[in-house]
Amino acid sequence: MSFKQRTHTCGELRTSHIGNYITLNGWIDRVRDLGGVLFIDMRDRYGKTQIVFNPQKCSSEVYELAKELRSEFVVSVSGNVEKRPEGTENSDLPTGEIDVIISSLEILNRSLTPPFSISEEDGTNEETRLKYRYLDLRRDAVQKNLLMRHKMYQVTRNYFSENNFIEVETPVLMKSTPEGARDYLVPSRVHHGKFYALPQSPQTYKQILMVAGFDRYFQIVKCFRDEDLRADRQPEFTQIDVEISFPDEELVYKIVEGCMTRLYKEVLNVEIPSPFPRMSYHDAMEKYGSDKPDLRFDLQLTNVTDVVKDSPFRLFAENVAKGGAVAGMKISNGNEIGRNQIDGYTDFMKKLGAGGLIWGRVVGDKIESPTEKHITQEYFQKIAKKMNCVDGDLILLASGSWINTFSWLGTLRLEIARKRNLIPASAGWDETQMKFLWVTEFPMFEFNEEEKRFVAMHHPFTSPSMEDVHFLDSEPNKARARAYDLVLNGNEIAGGSIRIHSSELQSKVFSLLGIGEEEAKRKFGFMLDAFKYGAPPHGGIAFGFDRIAMLMSGSKSIRDVIAFPKTTSAMSLMDEAPSEVDEKQLKELHIRVI
Amino acid sequence: MSFKQRTHTCGELRTSHIGNYITLNGWIDRVRDLGGVLFIDMRDRYGKTQIVFNPQKCSSEVYELAKELRSEFVVSVSGNVEKRPEGTENSDLPTGEIDVIISSLEILNRSLTPPFSISEEDGTNEETRLKYRYLDLRRDAVQKNLLMRHKMYQVTRNYFSENNFIEVETPVLMKSTPEGARDYLVPSRVHHGKFYALPQSPQTYKQILMVAGFDRYFQIVKCFRDEDLRADRQPEFTQIDVEISFPDEELVYKIVEGCMTRLYKEVLNVEIPSPFPRMSYHDAMEKYGSDKPDLRFDLQLTNVTDVVKDSPFRLFAENVAKGGAVAGMKISNGNEIGRNQIDGYTDFMKKLGAGGLIWGRVVGDKIESPTEKHITQEYFQKIAKKMNCVDGDLILLASGSWINTFSWLGTLRLEIARKRNLIPASAGWDETQMKFLWVTEFPMFEFNEEEKRFVAMHHPFTSPSMEDVHFLDSEPNKARARAYDLVLNGNEIAGGSIRIHSSELQSKVFSLLGIGEEEAKRKFGFMLDAFKYGAPPHGGIAFGFDRIAMLMSGSKSIRDVIAFPKTTSAMSLMDEAPSEVDEKQLKELHIRVI
Repeated sequence: MSFKQRTHTCGELRTSHIGNYITLNGWIDRVRDLGGVLFIDMRDRYGKTQIVFNPQKCSSEVYELAKELRSEFVVSVSGNVEKRPEGTENSDLPTGEIDVIISSLEILNRSLTPPFSISEEDGTNEETRLKYRYLDLRRDAVQKNLLMRHKMYQVTRNYFSENNFIEVETPVLMKSTPEGARDYLVPSRVHHGKFYALPQSPQTYKQILMVAGFDRYFQIVKCFRDEDLRADRQPEFTQIDVEISFPDEELVYKIVEGCMTRLYKEVLNVEIPSPFPRMSYHDAMEKYGSDKPDLRFDLQLTNVTDVVKDSPFRLFAENVAKGGAVAGMKISNGNEIGRNQIDGYTDFMKKLGAGGLIWGRVVGDKIESPTEKHITQEYFQKIAKKMNCVDGDLILLASGSWINTFSWLGTLRLEIARKRNLIPASAGWDETQMKFLWVTEFPMFEFNEEEKRFVAMHHPFTSPSMEDVHFLDSEPNKARARAYDLVLNGNEIAGGSIRIHSSELQSKVFSLLGIGEEEAKRKFGFMLDAFKYGAPPHGGIAFGFDRIAMLMSGSKSIRDVIAFPKTTSAMSLMDEAPSEVDEKQLKELHIRVI
Repeated sequence: MSFKQRTHTCGELRTSHIGNYITLNGWIDRVRDLGGVLFIDMRDRYGKTQIVFNPQKCSSEVYELAKELRSEFVVSVSGNVEKRPEGTENSDLPTGEIDVIISSLEILNRSLTPPFSISEEDGTNEETRLKYRYLDLRRDAVQKNLLMRHKMYQVTRNYFSENNFIEVETPVLMKSTPEGARDYLVPSRVHHGKFYALPQSPQTYKQILMVAGFDRYFQIVKCFRDEDLRADRQPEFTQIDVEISFPDEELVYKIVEGCMTRLYKEVLNVEIPSPFPRMSYHDAMEKYGSDKPDLRFDLQLTNVTDVVKDSPFRLFAENVAKGGAVAGMKISNGNEIGRNQIDGYTDFMKKLGAGGLIWGRVVGDKIESPTEKHITQEYFQKIAKKMNCVDGDLILLASGSWINTFSWLGTLRLEIARKRNLIPASAGWDETQMKFLWVTEFPMFEFNEEEKRFVAMHHPFTSPSMEDVHFLDSEPNKARARAYDLVLNGNEIAGGSIRIHSSELQSKVFSLLGIGEEEAKRKFGFMLDAFKYGAPPHGGIAFGFDRIAMLMSGSKSIRDVIAFPKTTSAMSLMDEAPSEVDEKQLKELHIRVI
C-alpha cells in the first residue's frame, strides 16, 4: 500500500501554517455533519486536528468517500491549512485556531464500531478493556501514562549513567534457588529433567558483578514471582536494580535520593525536598504500626506497656508479663466518633486476630470508658498522659504480642484514615503530599511460625549490623540488618541492603536460615566461591518501577501503567495466555501434565 | 564493616594531586618488593595507581600488614600523592607520573590465588573462564566490551527517544505460537495444563502497539529461542526492537541508518558513510551466493545459465532444461592456485551437496581444463566472456538448482576468501572496512522440503509487495515480500519488513502457510481482530544487539560481549543452570519429568 506520507502530525499545526498544503495520517476521532459540511477531529498520538470536507471545496469523489468515514477509520488526507472562522476557535486544542480544508482523501483502513468509546470514559469494565487492550491503549489517559513511563526510563538511565553506573543485562534463564517466593520454571530440552528459573531479582548476578570489579551497576529489569496475586502485584514486574561497591548507607541514600528528585523534577517538574527523613523499623512500628508508614496524616501510636505493666487489669498485666505489648492510638477530637463506629473498629480488629479493642474518651479531665472499672481511672490517666491526650480525644488500646499489637493498630490506623478522609485525594503532583521516608535497622530475621524457623526479613545476602554480629550465635532475633526501605505515602517503593561479602559470614547466615552446608553449596556455591577471590564490600537497592510509575501518574492500579498487564489470576485477556500447547512441544521438553 | 570511603578512583590521580592526602578502595593487581619497599599496582574499574609501602614512611604495623598483600586482595589505603622519582614514570598509565605513599592500610577482603591470571591473557580455556566468570569479568578486555555495550544502550535509546519513539516494555510471559523456532515454555501453576512461552520476539505486541496508535515504538529487549545452538547463537539474546506507523521502506532505512551512524560516531568515533547501498535478494544471490554478502572482498559470481543452456555438455544442458542454473566464480590471478587446492575446493563443494566443481584456467586466449573436451573450447570461451575473464583468471563452475548452485558457490566464496586472506583482519574501527548493505525484495515464501509446505521467509506478518499480491493466488513462490535485511561484512545485523495491516490479507497469508482458519484464530485471533478496528499501515525492524556489539568491539564471539553467556549447550557454567528442582515445585506446576 502506498499513500502520501504525513508532512505534520495531528498535534502540530498552528496559525503559522496557514496557507500551507499539508498531509496528515491518522485516525478519525469524531465526525460531525453540519449542514452537509463534515467537521472531523482527526487524531494521532501527538494530538487532534479538525479537518473539514466541504462539498464546495473538494471533488465529489472525495466528498462521497468522506461520507463513509466513521470513528477509528485510518486515513491519509491532504489539504490547505486555514484560519478558523471567527468564534469557532477551540481553545482546548493547541491546534484549535486552524482547520484543514481537505482536497484529497485516502482510506487506509476501516474499523468496526469499537466495543467501547475511545474518547470518553464510559465505565466499561476492566475485563473488556483488557481483552481489547489495543483499543484501550488508544485512550488519552493510558497513552499519557505510558509516555510518562517512557520518560521515566530515560531519566533514570541518564541519571545512573552520569553517576558512573554501568548498565549490564543479567540472564533471564537462570538457576532455580527459591527462597521466599516461588520461581517460574522453564524446562530444558537439551538437559533432560533439568530446569531454568526466571529471576525473582538479579540479586546474585549483581553481587557477582561487584566481585568482578564493575564498581557500579544498574539495570531496569523484568523480574518474576509465581505468587497468588494481590491487586497491586503482577507475575512479571519491573525494577530499577542498583548495586555499588565500597558503599556505606549514606552513599546509597544519596544516590537514591538523587534519582527520585531527578525523576520528579524532569518528569513532573516537581521539586521534592531531600534528604529524606529516616526512621528505624522499631520506631516505625511503634509510632505507625507499619514498616511502611504513611506520613501524610498523623494518628500516631504510643507504646504504653511500661505504664500498664503493673496495672490491676489482668489482661494487660498478664500480656506484659509474658513479653507482650500494650499500645494506644490517639484520635484527636475523636469524641465525635459514635459508639456504633467504635464497635465497627472493634470488629475490624477482631477480624485481624486481635482479642478486641479497648477505648476511652477524654472528657474534661476524666476518661470515660466501659472498661473504666477494670483498668481504673488512675491507670487510664497514666495512659492518657503518656499519649499526650487532651479533652476531646479518643483513645484506642490493643494488647498482644509486640508485633501483633502494633500491626493491628497500624492496619486500623489506615482504616480510620480512610474513613475519616485524612488521606489527601491524589498524589504524584503536589510535593507537600510526597512523604518520602527511609525505614532502617530492620531485624535480620523473623520467625516463621508455619515453618518453625528463621527466615530472612530482607534476603539471605543482607549483612548484619557490625555491632550485632555477636547476636548471631546467641540471639539471632536481636540482630539488626543493614537493610533499608524507601517508603512513599505508605508504599514501599525501594528496598535494599549492604550485603555480606565474606564467605564465612554468608555460610553462617545460610545455616541460621536452615540452609544446610550441602544445600548452600548446591544452590549458592558459586557465590560462596566468588567471595573467596577478593569480594569488595558492596550493597544496593531495587526500586519497584511499576509502583513508582503508578504513584507518579496518580493512577489507582499498576495495571494502568503497564502496556499489557495480566489479571490477578496471571492471565492475559487479550491473547489468552497461558494456553494449551502441542503434545509435541511437551514431549521435546521431557515433561507431561499430571 | 566500616572503612574509609575513597576520595578518588584508581584512574584519577595526576600531578595536580601531588601533596594531597587521599584514599583509594580497590584490588591489589601486582606486588613488587624492591629492596624492602613494596611497589603495588592497585586497580579498580577506572584504572591503576601505583601505591608504595616504604618502611621509612609508614608505621611498622602498616608495613607488616602490607607484606601480607597478594594479588586480588581488596584494600582501603590512604596516603600522600607524590611525584614519581625522575626516570621511574610510566607513560603507559594515565596515573604514571605519581605514586601514593601509603600511611594507612585496611585489608577489606583476602583472595585465594585465582585459577588464571587476571592481568595477562594466559590461554586459559573458555570453560574455565566461564566457570569463574566473576574473575574473567575482571579482565580489561571484557570490562572494555561491557563498558562499550553500556554506551551502546544509552546512545541507542537517546537516538530513538529524540526521534519520537516510545519505549514500551512488552510481556515476557506470553502465548506460545511457535512458527519458525521452538518456544521456551513456562508451566502455569494457576491454570492447570497451560503454559506461557518466552518471546522469540515481541512481534505481535509491537504490531498491537501500532494498532493502539503509539506511532513509533522501540525497546532493547531480551528474546528467546530454544534451538540447537551454533557458536554465535545464545538461547537468550538481545534485540533493538523498532516499529513505525505510516512508514514506507525509505523511512525505515533512514531511521536505521541514522541509528547506525550515531552508534559508530558516539561509541567508536568513526564516521560511516550513509545512505547504505542496496541490493535485491536476487542480485545478492547471483553475485555473491548469499543473502548476507560480505562486500569487503570481490570474488563475484556470474549466472551463465543462458550461455550454456544449449551447450553439448549434457550435465549443464539437462540441468538447465529442468529449471536449474549454472554459475561461475572468477578468481582473478587464480592460476597460481594449484591442482591440489582445486581438488580441495571440489571436496568442499561435494560436502555441501554439490555434484562437484568444474574449473578452467584462462591461459592466454585459451581455456585449459580437464573438462574441456566435454564443455568444448567454444562454450568455455562464451562462459569466460560472460564472466569478463582475462589471462591468468581461474574459473570455477557449479550446476544444480538455482538456490543450491548459488548457495554452494557463495559458501565456497567465503572459504576461498579465508584461504587467500582476502578478508581484512579486524573490523569495528576502520570505516573503510564497514561494508553495510541493505538486502531487499526477499521472496515471501520458501518451500520447506521436509514439511512439504511454504514457510515464511521473514515471518507470517510480512506484507507482500503490492504489485505481487496477485501471485498469492496463482504462484505464491513468485511473490516478493516488503522485507529488508541490514548486512554488515557478511553478518545480518537487522531484519524487518513492512507488515500486513489488513485482516483479510493476513488470513490469506496464514492459509498459504498452512495455518488453517481455526488454528489462525486460536493462535492469532486477537491480531486478526485488532486489524478490524482501524489498524494503520506499519512496519519495523529488529537489530541483533549482541552481534552488533561483537562487530563493534572487534570480538570473535558474542560470548565476549555478554556478561553471563551460556555455552552452546545452553548451560551457565558459573551457577550450573539448568539444574534439577524439587519434586514439590514440579507438583505445584502439575507436571512430571518423563
